[in-house]
Amino acid sequence: MKKWEENVRKVVPYTPGEQPNQPGMIKLNTNENPYPPAPGVQRALEELEAESLRLYPDPAASELVAALAEYYGKEKERFFVGVGSDDVIAMAFQTFFHSEKPILFPDISYSFYSVWADLFQIPYRRPALDGDFRLVKADYFKDNGGIIFPNPNAPTGIYMELEEVEEILSHNPDSVVIVDEAYVDFAGPSAMELVDKYENLMVVQTFSKSRSMAGIRIGFAYAQPKLIRYLNDVKYSFNSYTMNLPSLKLGAASLKDRAYFQETVSKIVSTRERVKKELSRLGFTFPDSKANFIFASHESCPAKELFAALREKNIYVRYFAAPRIENYLRITVGTDREMDELLNFLRAYLNRRPC
Amino acid sequence: MKKWEENVRKVVPYTPGEQPNQPGMIKLNTNENPYPPAPGVQRALEELEAESLRLYPDPAASELVAALAEYYGKEKERFFVGVGSDDVIAMAFQTFFHSEKPILFPDISYSFYSVWADLFQIPYRRPALDGDFRLVKADYFKDNGGIIFPNPNAPTGIYMELEEVEEILSHNPDSVVIVDEAYVDFAGPSAMELVDKYENLMVVQTFSKSRSMAGIRIGFAYAQPKLIRYLNDVKYSFNSYTMNLPSLKLGAASLKDRAYFQETVSKIVSTRERVKKELSRLGFTFPDSKANFIFASHESCPAKELFAALREKNIYVRYFAAPRIENYLRITVGTDREMDELLNFLRAYLNRRPC
Repeated sequence: MKKWEENVRKVVPYTPGEQPNQPGMIKLNTNENPYPPAPGVQRALEELEAESLRLYPDPAASELVAALAEYYGKEKERFFVGVGSDDVIAMAFQTFFHSEKPILFPDISYSFYSVWADLFQIPYRRPALDGDFRLVKADYFKDNGGIIFPNPNAPTGIYMELEEVEEILSHNPDSVVIVDEAYVDFAGPSAMELVDKYENLMVVQTFSKSRSMAGIRIGFAYAQPKLIRYLNDVKYSFNSYTMNLPSLKLGAASLKDRAYFQETVSKIVSTRERVKKELSRLGFTFPDSKANFIFASHESCPAKELFAALREKNIYVRYFAAPRIENYLRITVGTDREMDELLNFLRAYLNRRPC
Repeated sequence: MKKWEENVRKVVPYTPGEQPNQPGMIKLNTNENPYPPAPGVQRALEELEAESLRLYPDPAASELVAALAEYYGKEKERFFVGVGSDDVIAMAFQTFFHSEKPILFPDISYSFYSVWADLFQIPYRRPALDGDFRLVKADYFKDNGGIIFPNPNAPTGIYMELEEVEEILSHNPDSVVIVDEAYVDFAGPSAMELVDKYENLMVVQTFSKSRSMAGIRIGFAYAQPKLIRYLNDVKYSFNSYTMNLPSLKLGAASLKDRAYFQETVSKIVSTRERVKKELSRLGFTFPDSKANFIFASHESCPAKELFAALREKNIYVRYFAAPRIENYLRITVGTDREMDELLNFLRAYLNRRPC
């Protein structure tokens, strides 16, 4: 190693999730939405002019923030936008988890939390979910430097009722609590409604799942204005111009069509419920997912084997070789046709080779 | 202050530069390009389909990286792309400036360097430019934790010849040296040609100036593959999906039209040279800028006064209320027509009131 390399920050190289691009593939591995974005997004795209790209975008992302404020019927000062919810949460880690005390998040949860904590040298503890993959609230009633958990949780899909979220909040007035709601639109009420009562609560959502816009990279935070101001202060000292013009325009357009949004979300929810029944019949068990994926384990056939067999058929699902979950597949809810292909394959496979 | 606020990282709130949007304004304050992006960008925009936004973008940004590799005739493994050069440089600070020794950059330079160093708790020293705003090379021949400087420098526009850049490199085999070339296309040869010889050299460029794409947010680094790998390791542990689909597609398209690029860059250079002569006649002095701006001071009329007078006329230039440069205006080179309006106003103003 050369001398200059000694001063290089060494991280465990993280390999981004597989983004296969095979003709005819069925892509159920990264929880994308099978339906296109709202029709207004295509119109906004057609209105975009290359010439307008020569200027810097609005650093305050006002157009997008205003569209969020209108959609949710809240003040603009309560929203912060970033390049996907990863950007929003990473910024929040740097801003709010700035103490010597460990932050808390579940052992089975979104895999980036520990990566960011390591990167920013934030100490952390990961209380174990119980045997049914449920969060044990009492584990979060201890002194801490901050709390974050997804709701619904990833990769289990379990949704915690707001009364329980509030129990965690009421025990933690002294640290920032982040509820990561990437999948909440498929689940139930958002913790956004608790924000008036808890000024240390930050709710994070994304346009990548329920809004079919993973390719545009938009996430946002909702909190009381004081908290949002702290976040903006740090953000502006990093990079003022992160949201490019297409993301501002197309993001705002996607918020204008409430009916389309509700229709596609309902379709995914009803497909999910149907697939749950079919998977049960095939001998799978799973937590009761309220997200746009199902986290399923077969009674006899190892997840790893099924993962490989599906992949061979050009059907991509997600497999985590991690403790406690190494016998589960995370299956994104696609269209009815895609799910039928998956179910047909599994039915035939399990028939032929009952493991 | 509430208890949860004690753990909040406090930064000096940075206010992003003014992005006025007045009808009829002449915007010469943020070094944007007055010409539209290459015509191929509009075509790429028309080919974009909203439906393709439902999938995550390629985390490796392969299409854009391949277009850069082709444009420069270099290997793909030598390029790293980010959300503007601010993102690239901030990531490089975190990756390469990870020691206890101070990093070095000029006292008059891009204002974000000290902001990032503060944010990442990197010690730094800022050797003073000489009386003519030239970098004093010998100041960079001392033990350090890393070096960064813009070339051409901002906001002076002074371009340092490659022999001088190489002198700094040859004295610094033990730390990473970043040459920030946001404006190099308007100036002279890029330090890219020194990369084969110096594995600790990283060159950063942007699509925001010479490529007329400030609104799309693309910056890139060029270095030997080993250095790029270190940078990618850190980047992927932050946020794998920062480059959205429009930026990948439109960025790649903008690299396909060499003739248009050369034509618009030449136009700006020839406007700059003409404006320099006219400004001299009006009693301005300035370093010999090789960028797309001129950093000018009037012999008798205070910069602050001129700034305010121009602004009143809807002509926006940049004024820095900072030591040593508080009597200068940074004037972006716009179209000939825009510059004529500026010059006509200044001529009339200085005639009427010779300060």
